[in-house]
Amino acid sequence: MYNFVFKNPVKILFGKGEIANMRQELPEKAKIMLTYGGGSIFKNGVYDQVKAATEGLNLIEFGGIEPNPKFETLMKAVDICKAEKVDYLLSVGGGSVLDGTKFIAAAVLFEGNDPWDILAKSSSCPVTKALPIGAVLTLPATGSEMNGNAVISKIETNEKLAFGSPAVMPQFSVLDPEVIFSLPERQVANGVVDAFVHVMEQYLTFPVNSPLQDRFAESILKTLVEEGPKVLANRTDYEAAANFMWSATMALNGMIAVGVPQDWATHMIGHELTAFHGIDHAQTLAIVLPGIMHIRRKEKEAKLLQYGERVWGIAEGTPDERIDKTIRATIRFFESVGIKTTLPEYGVPGESITKITNRFAERGFKIGEKADIGPEEIKLILENRL
Amino acid sequence: MYNFVFKNPVKILFGKGEIANMRQELPEKAKIMLTYGGGSIFKNGVYDQVKAATEGLNLIEFGGIEPNPKFETLMKAVDICKAEKVDYLLSVGGGSVLDGTKFIAAAVLFEGNDPWDILAKSSSCPVTKALPIGAVLTLPATGSEMNGNAVISKIETNEKLAFGSPAVMPQFSVLDPEVIFSLPERQVANGVVDAFVHVMEQYLTFPVNSPLQDRFAESILKTLVEEGPKVLANRTDYEAAANFMWSATMALNGMIAVGVPQDWATHMIGHELTAFHGIDHAQTLAIVLPGIMHIRRKEKEAKLLQYGERVWGIAEGTPDERIDKTIRATIRFFESVGIKTTLPEYGVPGESITKITNRFAERGFKIGEKADIGPEEIKLILENRL
Repeated sequence: MYNFVFKNPVKILFGKGEIANMRQELPEKAKIMLTYGGGSIFKNGVYDQVKAATEGLNLIEFGGIEPNPKFETLMKAVDICKAEKVDYLLSVGGGSVLDGTKFIAAAVLFEGNDPWDILAKSSSCPVTKALPIGAVLTLPATGSEMNGNAVISKIETNEKLAFGSPAVMPQFSVLDPEVIFSLPERQVANGVVDAFVHVMEQYLTFPVNSPLQDRFAESILKTLVEEGPKVLANRTDYEAAANFMWSATMALNGMIAVGVPQDWATHMIGHELTAFHGIDHAQTLAIVLPGIMHIRRKEKEAKLLQYGERVWGIAEGTPDERIDKTIRATIRFFESVGIKTTLPEYGVPGESITKITNRFAERGFKIGEKADIGPEEIKLILENRL
Repeated sequence: MYNFVFKNPVKILFGKGEIANMRQELPEKAKIMLTYGGGSIFKNGVYDQVKAATEGLNLIEFGGIEPNPKFETLMKAVDICKAEKVDYLLSVGGGSVLDGTKFIAAAVLFEGNDPWDILAKSSSCPVTKALPIGAVLTLPATGSEMNGNAVISKIETNEKLAFGSPAVMPQFSVLDPEVIFSLPERQVANGVVDAFVHVMEQYLTFPVNSPLQDRFAESILKTLVEEGPKVLANRTDYEAAANFMWSATMALNGMIAVGVPQDWATHMIGHELTAFHGIDHAQTLAIVLPGIMHIRRKEKEAKLLQYGERVWGIAEGTPDERIDKTIRATIRFFESVGIKTTLPEYGVPGESITKITNRFAERGFKIGEKADIGPEEIKLILENRL
């Protein structure tokens, strides 16, 4: 395995009723901005629980953070934070609200001219300071609750970019699986697929003799395959909800990524599908991943065979036959939770492929675990999904 | 699964050459005490690497911390720390040196009369402050490098007790697998067994519907079974050493313990064998665990069957037959790395059993995941190992 540095200081409060225990994590004298999304927290009781747990604290609210949170919206919160001297952010929502909150936390203390540089120049100018963040998670999916990553979209330019910094890791995250009870089917299905593909991006690369990381990754995949459908079949199955929620967190808290190569091509191509066509993030992953598995079958052969055998029990046939079966099993799993996997099923025309490959050509760098996936490979990957 | 709180902020620097990178983790102006053990760090080159990485820092040294670190020895270091105004501890050694350093860190700031109370009254008076600690690990085994636990012995009373506190978690730990290259066979074998039994204490209890934690635990067990013998066969197999070292850390950093019951009866009984007979810690675990598996086969049946099937592939026969085979497989594994598993093989006479059960009778509380293992059960467990 490769050398690595690992540190994840996020405090997790996990289980039913834990929202009530977050008071001791919050600074008594802070000016807190409670951030939220479209208002589901008013219907599912989470808002009331948060208000009860924060009674007497100095709290203002900022709602309306969208799925694929928008730079333009978030900058309004940044202005309010500066005007009101907010010094603590409490994110109450799913991954989009939390990602948006991470951007607000960094942008309030940003010293440059254009806060979009936090995203656009993330590699050359990393974020080193941010307001402290606490989180109450209402939707298991992105893993944002236990990492320092965020993905932000800009309407003006149809861009969707990521940044990461230890400074925006939540100080604590409350994970109460009961929030799943009232989620719509589509959000649960998206969460299962999102978490699944997060694991694949850190696992389906090439072998570097990392048996423990491999087995941890396979453990999460198998648990998602097992527990995801249970949650969809019975939204009030607390144990299944808890196992799904913890799997989604473990999928992207850095633990399975230590010492191994990572891919992230599925995400980068998927982000363009969201930027151009507004397709749900998880849906884009379900479209792209099978294309990557198909087109990169030689480069990823050893891991594809291991994944097929250990997660799906596919051990018979030639390597190509096993890989074909493995791709079909993966597609069947996505479809079984109700997520379609081809471009036409989302109304995306073939000509969109050129728009997407052009964008990668303009950026001028290649993607994937060996940085060898460029516009031509992306064309083949997306054509495979027509 | 149960509700849980999890936080582990230890920074890990993992891989060959990483000792050189620890300078940025150390405070430039601190008075640092470098703690070590019997002097192996002078032979394996670790001392020279540490001195090079700390050049120019204000450093004093305290050596001679024993395996099963002694309260009496450690109190000498506490006196020096107070006299010399030491404000940072750098542990360079295995789990014993690091456990001892954790005690020093807590004892220097202890405000009561008798620092032994840190151990003797650990549940009623938890440690809330300690000097900061950095660690360079020279022996994978105890997991102390990524947790807040320590076990300390007192010569005067033949006692061996534990304490735990977030305050004594290392700020960073350097894990360079090359330290394994020069380890004697017995220390490697002890490390493999120690890590294996750490996992078992958090896994071999009763089911609480925690499939992810179970699979993570089984992942570590399988990796130890696979990689441990490779390290013993070729001490300079870097990849095997790295996989073993990371497995030992993951075995006891809290990750597999979240939301599940824990046992620790094997350790508590084993500590008495060390206290009375000076047997190596890991050896005592290899003696006691098979006895626990045998005597508690009804209480642990579901997990014993799962462990046998998933780790050893034992799926045929009646439950009792499968459990017998599983115990034999476990014993064979310990013996394959050179660790004996019965009391007579260590020269422990039958009459020692009474001395040990008397001690548990005096303490008056029972042990195990359901706190239902008392002196009578301990007698049966140890008699099984005659």
